[in-house]
Amino acid sequence: MNRFLQVVDVSDAVGTAIRIAPGPVPEEIPADQAPGRVLCADVIAGEDIPGFDRSIVDGFAVRANDTAGAGDAAPALLRNTGRVSMGDPESPLSVTNGTCVYVPTGGVLPAGADAVVMTEQTDTAGDMVLVKRPVAHGENVLMHDEDYRRGAVILPAGRRISPQDAGVLAASGRTMVTVAKKPVIGIISTGNELVPVSATPGPGQVRDANAPMIAAWLQEFGCIPRLYGIVRDERSSFEQALAKALPECDAILLSGGSSKDDRDMTAGIIAGSGEVLVHGITIAPGKPTIIGRIKNIPVFGLPGHPASAYVVLLVVVRPLVARMLGKTETPLVTTRATLGTNIPSQKGREEYVRVRLENGIAHPVFGKSGLLNTLVLSNGLIRIPAGCEGLEQGSTVDVILW
Amino acid sequence: MNRFLQVVDVSDAVGTAIRIAPGPVPEEIPADQAPGRVLCADVIAGEDIPGFDRSIVDGFAVRANDTAGAGDAAPALLRNTGRVSMGDPESPLSVTNGTCVYVPTGGVLPAGADAVVMTEQTDTAGDMVLVKRPVAHGENVLMHDEDYRRGAVILPAGRRISPQDAGVLAASGRTMVTVAKKPVIGIISTGNELVPVSATPGPGQVRDANAPMIAAWLQEFGCIPRLYGIVRDERSSFEQALAKALPECDAILLSGGSSKDDRDMTAGIIAGSGEVLVHGITIAPGKPTIIGRIKNIPVFGLPGHPASAYVVLLVVVRPLVARMLGKTETPLVTTRATLGTNIPSQKGREEYVRVRLENGIAHPVFGKSGLLNTLVLSNGLIRIPAGCEGLEQGSTVDVILW
Repeated sequence: MNRFLQVVDVSDAVGTAIRIAPGPVPEEIPADQAPGRVLCADVIAGEDIPGFDRSIVDGFAVRANDTAGAGDAAPALLRNTGRVSMGDPESPLSVTNGTCVYVPTGGVLPAGADAVVMTEQTDTAGDMVLVKRPVAHGENVLMHDEDYRRGAVILPAGRRISPQDAGVLAASGRTMVTVAKKPVIGIISTGNELVPVSATPGPGQVRDANAPMIAAWLQEFGCIPRLYGIVRDERSSFEQALAKALPECDAILLSGGSSKDDRDMTAGIIAGSGEVLVHGITIAPGKPTIIGRIKNIPVFGLPGHPASAYVVLLVVVRPLVARMLGKTETPLVTTRATLGTNIPSQKGREEYVRVRLENGIAHPVFGKSGLLNTLVLSNGLIRIPAGCEGLEQGSTVDVILW
Repeated sequence: MNRFLQVVDVSDAVGTAIRIAPGPVPEEIPADQAPGRVLCADVIAGEDIPGFDRSIVDGFAVRANDTAGAGDAAPALLRNTGRVSMGDPESPLSVTNGTCVYVPTGGVLPAGADAVVMTEQTDTAGDMVLVKRPVAHGENVLMHDEDYRRGAVILPAGRRISPQDAGVLAASGRTMVTVAKKPVIGIISTGNELVPVSATPGPGQVRDANAPMIAAWLQEFGCIPRLYGIVRDERSSFEQALAKALPECDAILLSGGSSKDDRDMTAGIIAGSGEVLVHGITIAPGKPTIIGRIKNIPVFGLPGHPASAYVVLLVVVRPLVARMLGKTETPLVTTRATLGTNIPSQKGREEYVRVRLENGIAHPVFGKSGLLNTLVLSNGLIRIPAGCEGLEQGSTVDVILW
């Protein structure tokens, strides 16, 4: 029995990837560099936000009771006693029964007032204001703790900081933020047929397309890719590259060929200094994937066909690095579409079919997984579960966008 | 008549934004920095890719004719005359009638062969190979120009370079790429009530949340935000900041208050040195938006409420900067969902309702547009066209994801 033969299904492979992932390492960084990073600790409101009762319209601050029953025919008559200035720290203005104060959008609600009447619903005559609509208590006012109350969780740990979140961080006065360190992911390319991008391939040679693709994907996902170049398919140079990468990286991806020899050598080298946990996944494309570990560093062997490598990045490597970043929400972005053609599928393997989305129709981009052009021509993937024999034209499908 | 009163609908505003946007400026950068950038010129294949006929499986290179009619009971019998090594520049091996050569995945198809039989469909006995399935001409082979033919457009100008595209760029030998320069977008915050993030707001003051939010959004979209700090609501300091920003920026966003005074001052200052093209958009939230131009530099006045500012970024500023980047495809990413509650809407304005997506149900996050928390609690937007009076619970909606 081959000790490496441990073909597992996708959920087992993902489970293994998550299980061996090192947890996030916190670091403090300036808040203006935080967007796109993942929070490593809850952000708590240190004070009420906005901190004072504000008007959300241009209008007159009033006591709501004074406007009861007001209408076009019988407006409420209030005396205007002043005007709030924006950002004025010391407003001596207050509202009593029968009076009102002009307040611009965002201005402080004067003491005594409990609502604001929009300018559009008033007329003025000298210092008198005719209110033509009644307002309720609190109307057109943002209360001092209505956005966030002191002590509330503003943003939870595990959240990727969006542009909107950057606004909330600023509002709460955060100049430094605790986020997960960007994991350093090593990429070692193996294959005697590979030459660097800058070289002109000779007969039988191709440029290493996968390493730059993997690096770009890792960077987009919030990691630091570290390229270790191309090593020949010899145990010694492979082991040398691995020995260099292991102390410098939090995880390592081996981007190799897809031949049986390649897979066996990769598995043999991982097993030599660590353990092979998965050797083959019931996924198409992407079957010849290896998951192992050396000294607690996850070491993955990715398939050599570019489309296979990319699918494995999305389906198996993604949960690994999400866990390393401490990300709690990691749904793949999907959109619903109608399938343009029948897709046959083989039972017993989870299949990912590249599709081109056009006007809500998903057109399968059939093609060998060795073709780069299918990755460029498609803009998404349809997942066909292992137990399914295919999908019919016209059925509704969820397309994973890329 | 107010010379500034030029309220327009959303499509007019977007049209104006695109019309006044400066076009993309090309620059050459190293290909490994290109992912996420926008191509400024087509990338053309300088040679056939992969450049030679390759096997896409582990198997035996054969002449397809030799396998005609082969089956389990009557296998075709071929003599194995050797083994292709990966990346071997000078393969002396060739296939003639009655012979075959072992070739690993990715290996060169030997001269004379026109197909590959997978190992799994053969048995071996000494140097004889028993082929149990017929193969067609070209089967399991990637032809030398099957990925890209010399002269073909690999990636078109205007495309944002994806991780997959980075792989294609590498395969085509591109070490430098011509992309659009990142537009420098100035952000000037105005408002007497605003204090910097690092300050503790006094009574009536709030921290400037919008500028960091806008900056983060611009960065994510591929621009360089340049923050000019907070200026007081006085014509002179406002004009000073604008005079500093104009020669340094490709476009300028004024992040101001939402009061009528703020809007009028912003419009007045733009009109003073340039022209106001739009003053108000029939969009909710986001009506108090100003579009102008000073010396061919687009200058936008954004609304002060954070949710309004964010909607205007997505709907109006996005087409501006997309045009500045030369982006050809700029669809907002949407997903289909079922509406969880009725949403009333006012006819005559295009409304954007924040929603929380959960298990395919879109729950509206109602709340004042001055609230930051609605931006954090929601993860998308539903657009309600100007002619529509609302959407019914249970109807199918497209949610713009954020």
